[in-house]
Amino acid sequence: MNLKIFKANKKHAKDIIRLINELAQFEKLTPPDDKANRRLINNAFGKKPLFNILVTSEGKKIIAYAFYFFTYSSFLARKTLYLEDIFISADYRHKGIGKMLMNELIKIAKKKKCGRMEWCVLDWNKSAINFYEKLGSRELKEWKYYRIEL
Amino acid sequence: MNLKIFKANKKHAKDIIRLINELAQFEKLTPPDDKANRRLINNAFGKKPLFNILVTSEGKKIIAYAFYFFTYSSFLARKTLYLEDIFISADYRHKGIGKMLMNELIKIAKKKKCGRMEWCVLDWNKSAINFYEKLGSRELKEWKYYRIEL
Repeated sequence: MNLKIFKANKKHAKDIIRLINELAQFEKLTPPDDKANRRLINNAFGKKPLFNILVTSEGKKIIAYAFYFFTYSSFLARKTLYLEDIFISADYRHKGIGKMLMNELIKIAKKKKCGRMEWCVLDWNKSAINFYEKLGSRELKEWKYYRIEL
Repeated sequence: MNLKIFKANKKHAKDIIRLINELAQFEKLTPPDDKANRRLINNAFGKKPLFNILVTSEGKKIIAYAFYFFTYSSFLARKTLYLEDIFISADYRHKGIGKMLMNELIKIAKKKKCGRMEWCVLDWNKSAINFYEKLGSRELKEWKYYRIEL
């Protein structure tokens, strides 16, 4: 395989939306509508990007992405790299592509002097959980996560 | 009581650090050292603030704070207001100050067109959990939270 990891730009919008739809199918969720897709692309590639996108290409095909942004730990007084989404197209799994992306994210986090890298995973996604635990991460079992929908 | 809520600035640094120390005592944690405190103040009030601080004053005294920043939901394609810390000085609890701060944060989140407001709470902090549930938030039980320390 001829794999490359790089920061996506607006030219990759169609590929990213194709992979988002594939992810929605995998998670058995309704994929985002056109309006949400347009908003996401503008939020990623506009004047003030709200998040960052790393992609992996195999030859000319975009086959994986990671969405991430920086949060903040008041306890450490340092930035945290927060991984919002990571997705590898079905035909390209179990080839080390997820690990490559995670290692690249860790590299970015260290360069930005983050104290931590964090993310959430759905409790039924056993293969992802297994993957994350092998990477040396730990579940924050003592914290409860709350949300208000606005 | 003569309560006001407003965005903190560098002039409030000492008050904020005093309250952080009080919080560390409450959570039975070692308070951050001087270096971490300086970093936190620079990160809040520097040229490119990494997070925002709302404070509550009673007369001339700063008695509560909320640290928050904006994350992103790729599912909604909208910002999320993330509450990193909320703290009310011991003598001022059970007076509705927490609710005032939460309502102000919800107002800010709506103004910024966020789809959600989110935060974490330690599982032993039953009074905080009770407070959050009365506010109409829900625990995201289906998600597991992972971290790598860098």
